Amino acid sequence: MNERAQRAIAECRLIAAMSEEPDRTTRRFLTPPTHDVHAHLRRRMEALGMKVQTDAAGNLRGLLEPPGARGRRLILGSHIDTVPNAGAFDGVLGVVLALELVQELIQNAKQRELLPIEVIAFSEEEGIRFGVPFIGSRAVAGRFDPALLALKDADEVTMADAICNFGLDPAHIAGAALDANVLGFLEIHIEQGPVLEAENLRLAAVTAIVGQSRYALTFTGRANHAGTTPMHLRRDALAGAAEFVSAVESLAQSAEGLVATVGRVEVDPNAGNVIAGAVRVSMDVRHFDDAQRQAAVQTLLETAKAIAGRRGLGLECSRQMDQPAVPMDERLTAFLAEAIEAAGLPARRMPSGAGHDAMVMATRVPAAMLFLRSPGGISHHPDEAVLEEDVETALLVGCKFLERLAAGAR
Amino acid sequence: MNERAQRAIAECRLIAAMSEEPDRTTRRFLTPPTHDVHAHLRRRMEALGMKVQTDAAGNLRGLLEPPGARGRRLILGSHIDTVPNAGAFDGVLGVVLALELVQELIQNAKQRELLPIEVIAFSEEEGIRFGVPFIGSRAVAGRFDPALLALKDADEVTMADAICNFGLDPAHIAGAALDANVLGFLEIHIEQGPVLEAENLRLAAVTAIVGQSRYALTFTGRANHAGTTPMHLRRDALAGAAEFVSAVESLAQSAEGLVATVGRVEVDPNAGNVIAGAVRVSMDVRHFDDAQRQAAVQTLLETAKAIAGRRGLGLECSRQMDQPAVPMDERLTAFLAEAIEAAGLPARRMPSGAGHDAMVMATRVPAAMLFLRSPGGISHHPDEAVLEEDVETALLVGCKFLERLAAGAR
Repeated sequence: MNERAQRAIAECRLIAAMSEEPDRTTRRFLTPPTHDVHAHLRRRMEALGMKVQTDAAGNLRGLLEPPGARGRRLILGSHIDTVPNAGAFDGVLGVVLALELVQELIQNAKQRELLPIEVIAFSEEEGIRFGVPFIGSRAVAGRFDPALLALKDADEVTMADAICNFGLDPAHIAGAALDANVLGFLEIHIEQGPVLEAENLRLAAVTAIVGQSRYALTFTGRANHAGTTPMHLRRDALAGAAEFVSAVESLAQSAEGLVATVGRVEVDPNAGNVIAGAVRVSMDVRHFDDAQRQAAVQTLLETAKAIAGRRGLGLECSRQMDQPAVPMDERLTAFLAEAIEAAGLPARRMPSGAGHDAMVMATRVPAAMLFLRSPGGISHHPDEAVLEEDVETALLVGCKFLERLAAGAR
Repeated sequence: MNERAQRAIAECRLIAAMSEEPDRTTRRFLTPPTHDVHAHLRRRMEALGMKVQTDAAGNLRGLLEPPGARGRRLILGSHIDTVPNAGAFDGVLGVVLALELVQELIQNAKQRELLPIEVIAFSEEEGIRFGVPFIGSRAVAGRFDPALLALKDADEVTMADAICNFGLDPAHIAGAALDANVLGFLEIHIEQGPVLEAENLRLAAVTAIVGQSRYALTFTGRANHAGTTPMHLRRDALAGAAEFVSAVESLAQSAEGLVATVGRVEVDPNAGNVIAGAVRVSMDVRHFDDAQRQAAVQTLLETAKAIAGRRGLGLECSRQMDQPAVPMDERLTAFLAEAIEAAGLPARRMPSGAGHDAMVMATRVPAAMLFLRSPGGISHHPDEAVLEEDVETALLVGCKFLERLAAGAR
């Protein structure tokens, strides 16, 4: 019954075996197994009648121009690099399902209007090898800064050399940028979170990639003997930091759509019998609405200041990231929501809490994203999974989206 | 005016220069500079007419038996080992002041009743070299477990070899134990905390060494993406641990004489964009009353359980230390308080939040302790200090204590 879905899942698992490491999936930007993935996808694309090329940023790109097709093309795709010890579906599923949709399009004789389609397997999204994410989509969106080429990986190999070693010429990266003849971009991706599963839903149309603020806060008190210092004479940096951690959680719980996290704590001197002299904590705040995110950050920084003031602690706050939300294209997202409803499902719309290639592509072309439920909310882990019925439904929704888009583009 | 005090302080600073390290004071159990300290103290003791020996645990012991003296002897002393990068007064001050008191005793012709006095420079109290404290006083109190001899230091040298290398025979440690002919033990020591300074007091009589409970608690939640996991679907181990840290502080603030500290926090995976999956925290609880300490521990463990239960977190608690309080001898402490009052000062009594040789000696003989104010509450640090007037007053109090004891022992 779900033959297409089974095939797609099997293909993702096949690609997961193309790895830098023998028993687990790790495939960083343009490392040798990327050649294997390219060879596999190139065969698939060519079998579908696509014209295939690898651009200078290492993106594998297949172009389908059906005989009757005309006008601007739709881009489908996602990334093929992975985190260390990855699952099989983050990124790769979006490429595999793009090819399944092309196959559907070709086989479906009833499709009166055919769109030209480009499938892109982005070379890099995770930011593992060079510490900078979205190398592939930056190049395609025409937003690649050549200064990045000087970055070095853990083995002191520059990004320029990594590209050369793969058989490509970094001098030509500007040529990877899209021409103007593009209708839009659709990325199919696993949710990587627990929302759809908790709501017993298969799919959602992504409304925006949330904006993100990251700060480091350091509370400074006075390290002292835990036995000889009475409570009223302490300036305990950890007690102050703990109060802040609770305040971060509490504010986020009270505001719709806000997530705020302290995930990192460093205590000095970090000994059981010494009152903490200094504690550094991270703060990560995200919301799809930039004004609400900024307001939350402001409130939390003021809370930290009040906690430090009341406790006689020093406080330093440094901003490490302030990335605005990126809304998906309203028209394409409406098509996607209609397609979900046409498949007989509720058209759940939700923001993405994580960054994706669609975030970069949206700076250049109208972009949309379709999320598939992540069982257990698990991602970036070998247990990462997808359900067959969700994959099948995503393909159905993808076809209906293409029909609508073709009709709309007519 | 304060010539005696100045001399004592200068002598402590002289001894601080006898170190394993060139520019800072570090003198672990029986390391080479201990020979220099012994040579110096031996000269001092012999000049005072004391009989000097080094026992098999490395304690330097000088015995004063004045011509007219009879009966049981008083023991005075403290330790001469240090923590790494130590101050000049922790331990050493108690030995130096013991010798100053002996000198006073000898010079004071009006002293009608003379006590025999033994001054002990304990070889080890801090527990740095072999991870076990009180090696010296354990031997003197007859509580040295020979199994300790097999412990190894960081250089794989056993305690037995360390003792042999110093020119002593570990087989004779049992012979270091006190005979029955002892009146009691007095240790003069810096407070190592901020209480006396905060109360503008010079000295205090120690009532007890507080009891101490140490636990490790691990809160286990679910590590998850900080962007894609909404607040209501989180099981954040750090948010739970932070609530516990606040509860520990809050309980201790509400109970007289209680100190409770979380000083150590370890977060897994400890990344700013990942919700904490597991957090391990230390808990250190101290009180001079064992029942109150146990009750506080019980309350805090139940609080941790309640926090974990409410948040769907796992919780493991392991007890690492449960050491009862050690009261000082009431009669000797009363003498000490009288002596403080006789010196024209308020007789502040306070517990010691840290362990001392007196804690071990108290298991064998009546013991008392005199605390000197620690400027800034600073100890275990090169800035550790004493005030000249406090040292002078401590000597005065020591003399008055000896008078009272001699009168009482008559």
